[in-house]
Amino acid sequence: MSEQIKVVLTEDELPKQWYNLAADFAHPMPPPVDISGKPIGPEALARIFPMNLIEQEVSTERWIDIPDEIMGYLKIWRPTPLYRARRLEKALGTPAKIYYKNEGVSPAGSHKPNTAVAQAWYNKQFGIKKLTTETGAGQWGSALAFACSLVGGMECKVFMVRISFDQKPFRKMMMRTWGGDCVASPSMETEVGRRILAEDPNTPGSLGIAISEAIEECLRRDDTRYTLGSVLNHVMLHQTVIGQEAQNQMKKIGDYPDVVIGCAGGGSNFAGIAFPFINDRMHGADIRIIATEPQACPTLTRAEYRYDAGDVAMMTPLLPMHSLGHTFVAPPLHAGGLRYHGMAPMVSHAMNEGHIEASSIGQTECYEAAVLFARTEGFIPAPETSHAIAQTIREAKRATEEGKEKTILMNWSGHGLMDLKGYEAYLDGHLQDYPLPDELLQKSQVCMEGLPRP
Amino acid sequence: MSEQIKVVLTEDELPKQWYNLAADFAHPMPPPVDISGKPIGPEALARIFPMNLIEQEVSTERWIDIPDEIMGYLKIWRPTPLYRARRLEKALGTPAKIYYKNEGVSPAGSHKPNTAVAQAWYNKQFGIKKLTTETGAGQWGSALAFACSLVGGMECKVFMVRISFDQKPFRKMMMRTWGGDCVASPSMETEVGRRILAEDPNTPGSLGIAISEAIEECLRRDDTRYTLGSVLNHVMLHQTVIGQEAQNQMKKIGDYPDVVIGCAGGGSNFAGIAFPFINDRMHGADIRIIATEPQACPTLTRAEYRYDAGDVAMMTPLLPMHSLGHTFVAPPLHAGGLRYHGMAPMVSHAMNEGHIEASSIGQTECYEAAVLFARTEGFIPAPETSHAIAQTIREAKRATEEGKEKTILMNWSGHGLMDLKGYEAYLDGHLQDYPLPDELLQKSQVCMEGLPRP
Repeated sequence: MSEQIKVVLTEDELPKQWYNLAADFAHPMPPPVDISGKPIGPEALARIFPMNLIEQEVSTERWIDIPDEIMGYLKIWRPTPLYRARRLEKALGTPAKIYYKNEGVSPAGSHKPNTAVAQAWYNKQFGIKKLTTETGAGQWGSALAFACSLVGGMECKVFMVRISFDQKPFRKMMMRTWGGDCVASPSMETEVGRRILAEDPNTPGSLGIAISEAIEECLRRDDTRYTLGSVLNHVMLHQTVIGQEAQNQMKKIGDYPDVVIGCAGGGSNFAGIAFPFINDRMHGADIRIIATEPQACPTLTRAEYRYDAGDVAMMTPLLPMHSLGHTFVAPPLHAGGLRYHGMAPMVSHAMNEGHIEASSIGQTECYEAAVLFARTEGFIPAPETSHAIAQTIREAKRATEEGKEKTILMNWSGHGLMDLKGYEAYLDGHLQDYPLPDELLQKSQVCMEGLPRP
Repeated sequence: MSEQIKVVLTEDELPKQWYNLAADFAHPMPPPVDISGKPIGPEALARIFPMNLIEQEVSTERWIDIPDEIMGYLKIWRPTPLYRARRLEKALGTPAKIYYKNEGVSPAGSHKPNTAVAQAWYNKQFGIKKLTTETGAGQWGSALAFACSLVGGMECKVFMVRISFDQKPFRKMMMRTWGGDCVASPSMETEVGRRILAEDPNTPGSLGIAISEAIEECLRRDDTRYTLGSVLNHVMLHQTVIGQEAQNQMKKIGDYPDVVIGCAGGGSNFAGIAFPFINDRMHGADIRIIATEPQACPTLTRAEYRYDAGDVAMMTPLLPMHSLGHTFVAPPLHAGGLRYHGMAPMVSHAMNEGHIEASSIGQTECYEAAVLFARTEGFIPAPETSHAIAQTIREAKRATEEGKEKTILMNWSGHGLMDLKGYEAYLDGHLQDYPLPDELLQKSQVCMEGLPRP
């Protein structure tokens, strides 16, 4: 008999609760503050988020029940399968065992719907009729359009970073198919957008700009709220179903990871796989947990831990995070979802408390890893996901050098079927790396001067 | 608790054998013949197919063991989940229960890899180093490129119908990512292609033309063979894992279909879901089985049952099938996979023996169905699959009118993430239907005059 390669769970094995890492930090996370450094209360967020999500944002309850209707939505693609990457192991000739959690099976093709359906549902419960958001490569925007169509009676407006909008034309059609509306950002539809286009008509855009536009659009109508697909505490929370399922699946096959790896932009898929294992680590598990980011947008590996705004126009409160500065515009690398200037406060805090480590990798090494993965395991990875694969391959090669067995668990955050232009560029030899020069790093952080420090 | 919506199987529940309907027909199928009407023997096919697949092509064994290595490949995405389409049922307000088998979970996004991995493996066993093929919308070409990369050491060359090549630019990149080579057909790389381009430089191409090119390319090197993603008996055989899994899944939830529906172009995904249920029907099950095809390419519903060639240059033997004529060029409808001029001999024979019925639907009704499906069930269907959905909705509405419960099982043959331009055309109101005029139908069949009759 050919060997087993995947572990599937039934619907009744879907986790019933989200895990909140905030309950278990040794030191509480610094609160969001205003420009003067004064902690802001929940009411300051009420105009852009519904109160039920704000409550989750500030919660320190360890376990939060997943409402039954949200479970119903999650069942469309969850539990997701856990794979043993036997063909990749063989190609690498490694003694390491490589497992990956396939989050690409969702209708939108990534882990993003895990929080999109939750956010759409909580907003609907609160009486909201329209959601606005930004999207980098389009994973989050399409997940939200999908979620709005599922819960019903909810408009969806997405500002998509221009460089990705141009690289990935099918993302807009995908959102439209689910009834969502998607425009390139900066757009002429907002004051922020018009101002930035006047200054630089050829700007590739950035997540920081798109967030400002989405918030401006949100503030136009009382029945509208803003959503974020990463960075915030409640988003990390919603993603923890990934790691909980993986724990159950590893148990079923009688194995346990020595290393857990996820790619990290804003931090959401990384948090999803990592936080439940950080909890294990706090209870004595001997495990390394690695966040891997692009060399071109190195928040965890090179940026300072600061209070910074979430967007270029400073419309959000200040959050404590590793940040390149809210004016940072990443080079046009293909992993558009990993171009955010800051790292989720919870992931930043987990780093500061020593629970995780971080690495950064250039995009040519990532695409090399992605193509090897596609040609051995079959599934074509998203460019974001390729960072986790590249780190996994580094760890597997180290196991070969050391001649040691090792169990690696990777979050395969999404498929790359909407992102094939990056593959074409790589196969044509047109891809290049963008290591951030020191002087640019310092320059990009100037915008945080004068802001309070955590 | 939210209701169950899907049934998953474990890897050890993957069917161990393929089901061969040829064993159970009341009358044997007419054999392939040459131009004079003389039955051809296996050796006549030996230059374009490996002998191990030719043996399957002519086999009348009821059950054929699936080799263990092929099982290993199938496990990458199989067994596929069976879904209850509860949200679609609710949107339709129907008393019907609708189930769909999700074949979109494969790395290439459709049912095509079921036979691609088998064909690549058998060719490799036979010492073949390169496979050529044609592809309509790209589902088959990408499935074969995927399969060649999995088995290893196998070149892959795909001729893709030009209209689809232009509509679906990402398909080529997908094939390249797996190491395959894809060109638009007609191409300048073959004699057939050059001749047709000289006659009509603006031709949209056709599957019949692309097949001729692929066979010409196959004949250039001794270590090369040709593959077909549909039509042939061994392809139908390989797809029967779909229906066998569905039988098991229906049993597990204690239900059984009154109606089984699949879209039909060459016939492969339809055969996959239908043949095991035809077997049930032969043993007394009260069940209707419906093949749904495009109005613009109505082989089962309007074309004669004839001996006809599989390709425009008549390089293949003559096959007994419902055929619009091998020179037929379908209008540029978006369901590119359903534009083949003929219907699989086994499906044609099943129709003639009264086991199945057929319907044809225009593409606007299909896209309307596809958008409703995407906005209720979440997954975006391939344009081909939308024909099965449209027929399912017709059946569900009939159940509403008659006030009768009914259980419908549909094969959801693939996702539409590579086919979003059709959705854009539909949402922009630019889509039109192409019912085939009688005089064009008669004209397209002229090329079969003088050919022997079954």
